[in-house]
Amino acid sequence: MAIVVVGSVAYDGIKSPSGSVDRCLGGAATYFALAASYFTQVRIVAVVGDDFSQEDENVLRSRKIDTRGIEHTKGKSFFWRGEYGENLNEAKTLETQLNVFQTFNPQVPSEYLDSEFLFLANIDPVLQGNVRAQMDGRVKLVGGDTMNYWITDPNHRKNLFQTLKGVDVLLINDTEAKLLATEPSVPRAAQKILQMGPRALVIKHGEYGATVFFKEGEFGGGRHPFRAPALPLEEVRDPTGAGDSFAGGFMGYIASQNRLDREVFKRAMFYGGVMGSFAVERFGTERLQALTRQEIDIRYQVFRELTHIG
Amino acid sequence: MAIVVVGSVAYDGIKSPSGSVDRCLGGAATYFALAASYFTQVRIVAVVGDDFSQEDENVLRSRKIDTRGIEHTKGKSFFWRGEYGENLNEAKTLETQLNVFQTFNPQVPSEYLDSEFLFLANIDPVLQGNVRAQMDGRVKLVGGDTMNYWITDPNHRKNLFQTLKGVDVLLINDTEAKLLATEPSVPRAAQKILQMGPRALVIKHGEYGATVFFKEGEFGGGRHPFRAPALPLEEVRDPTGAGDSFAGGFMGYIASQNRLDREVFKRAMFYGGVMGSFAVERFGTERLQALTRQEIDIRYQVFRELTHIG
Repeated sequence: MAIVVVGSVAYDGIKSPSGSVDRCLGGAATYFALAASYFTQVRIVAVVGDDFSQEDENVLRSRKIDTRGIEHTKGKSFFWRGEYGENLNEAKTLETQLNVFQTFNPQVPSEYLDSEFLFLANIDPVLQGNVRAQMDGRVKLVGGDTMNYWITDPNHRKNLFQTLKGVDVLLINDTEAKLLATEPSVPRAAQKILQMGPRALVIKHGEYGATVFFKEGEFGGGRHPFRAPALPLEEVRDPTGAGDSFAGGFMGYIASQNRLDREVFKRAMFYGGVMGSFAVERFGTERLQALTRQEIDIRYQVFRELTHIG
Repeated sequence: MAIVVVGSVAYDGIKSPSGSVDRCLGGAATYFALAASYFTQVRIVAVVGDDFSQEDENVLRSRKIDTRGIEHTKGKSFFWRGEYGENLNEAKTLETQLNVFQTFNPQVPSEYLDSEFLFLANIDPVLQGNVRAQMDGRVKLVGGDTMNYWITDPNHRKNLFQTLKGVDVLLINDTEAKLLATEPSVPRAAQKILQMGPRALVIKHGEYGATVFFKEGEFGGGRHPFRAPALPLEEVRDPTGAGDSFAGGFMGYIASQNRLDREVFKRAMFYGGVMGSFAVERFGTERLQALTRQEIDIRYQVFRELTHIG
C-alpha cells in the first residue's frame, strides 16, 4: 500500500572523520523515500529550487518513487552543511540555507489521496498538520518526526501538541523524548508522550538501537515494549539521514503488510535498524540508491543473530 | 561449579532522587556474590574491619555464600558515599574511605582452590594478578572488571595490561572500553581489546543493555557479537551495584552450565541484565537478598519478549 511522505528534499555538504562531500542529494524526505521504496510505493510531497538537477530527480524515479508532489519553484533548494567529530552521534551544523523551503506550503496532489499511509518528516508542525488534514479519508496510519527546535520554542510547542493528536506513531530520539515530556527518565517520558496522542512511540537510541512503546490496548494489546538493536558497525562513514532511513524502513515495512499488530511492528523495528545501518556506510544516499531486497533480508538475519537466543 | 570472587565487601552511603540511606552493605564482591548465588556456589575473598556486623555476614551466609575467605582485620571497613542526580547513569562520589582496603593482600583459602571459575572484581590490577596466580590449576574461566582509574594512570595501566593477559572475559562499560583501547568507536575499541588477552569482551551500555564481542574462533566460533537489552524501567531507585550484579548473573549462569559455548554466553548476557534490573529496584543489596529462581526466570522471559520476534 502506498505511503506519502512530506519533508525536505535538499542538498547537503558533509564532513566526517571518513571524508567529505561538498554537495550531495539529501533531505529527510529523500532518505525516508529511498529506504521505504524497497518495501512499498512511496510518494513525495516537497519543494525544490531550480538548481535541483534532473539527475537527482532520476535517483528517486529509478526507485519508482512518485515525484509528482515535488513542487519546482524559483530559487535555490534547501541546503545544509554539517560536520561530525569523533563522536558521530551529533552533527555540528555549519550552515543552513532554507531557501525555497522558507515559503513551503505543501499541497498533496489529488493522485496521492488514495494512499493509506502517511509520514510527516521533521518540518513545522503547522505544515505537518495541514498535510494530515489534506489526507483525511483513507489514511490508516500516520507516522511523524520532530526535533528540539519545535519542541522547545513555546509557540511551536503549542502547534506541535496540536499536530501530535493526529499522529499514530511518533519517531524521535532520547533527547527529544525527554524534552517533549519534560521528564529525565526515558521510560517515564514514553508513558507521558503516549498520553499526547500517539498510540505507539519509537525512541531511537543512536548506536544502541531503538525501543517501541505502545499505548495500553493499542495494536493488538500486550504489556511489553520492544527493543531493536543497531549494528555495532566498525566504520560509520556518514551518520546523516540514519534516523530518516530508520523511519523509511519502519514505515515502509508496515505499509507492505496487511495487518497492524505488534508482530508487524517488531519486524518493522528491525527493518528500520537495517535501513539505518546501510545509510551510514556511505556518504549521503549512495548506499540507499542501489540495494537489493536480498541484501536487506540478509542484514535482517544479522540483526536477528545479534539479539536472538538459540 | 564453584566461583571465587575477589573484591570489596564494604559499606555505602547512597543518595538518589528516590531517597537515601546513610549506611548499608555494599561493595563489588557483595553485589557480585549475591547475584551469582542464585546460580552456583560462590566463594568470597575480601577484607573487612571490626565494624563489619554479624548481621551483614549473615546476609551472605543465608545465600550459602562461602565467607571463609573474608579476612577480618583491625580498623574500619571500606566506605563509599555517593549521590545520583536525575541522570542516574553516573554517581558523584562524595567520600571514599579505603580503610582496611588500603593494605588488602588477598589470600585465597586452600578450601577454594578447587573452584573452576574466578571473577576479579574492580581492584588494583596487581592484586587481581596475584589472585589469578594463586588460583592456577583448575580454573576454566576467569572474568574481570576494571575502571578508569587503573586504565588512565600510566603505572597502573602497565599492570592492567599484564593482568589482562590472564583474563578470559573482561566486563567493562563504553567509556572504559574507549579509554582502554584509546579509540572513540566502541566496535573498533572492542576489536583492539580482544588483542590484549580477553577471548570475550562484554561492554555494558547502562540503560541500553550490553554487547558481548568474541575473539575470532573462541567459544565455538561464529562471526557475530550478541546484544542483550536492559529493561526500560520506569523507576530506578539506586543504580549502585548494577554492573557488579550484571557480572554476578553473567558469570554465575556460565558457572552453572556444563559447556562454554556462545549459546551459553548469550543466555548469560540475559541473566546478567536480569540481575542488574533487580539490583536497581531497591537501595543497596535489598532486592538481591531475597529473590527466588522463579522470579528470575519470569524476568528472563520479559527480556526475551522485549527483544525476540514472533
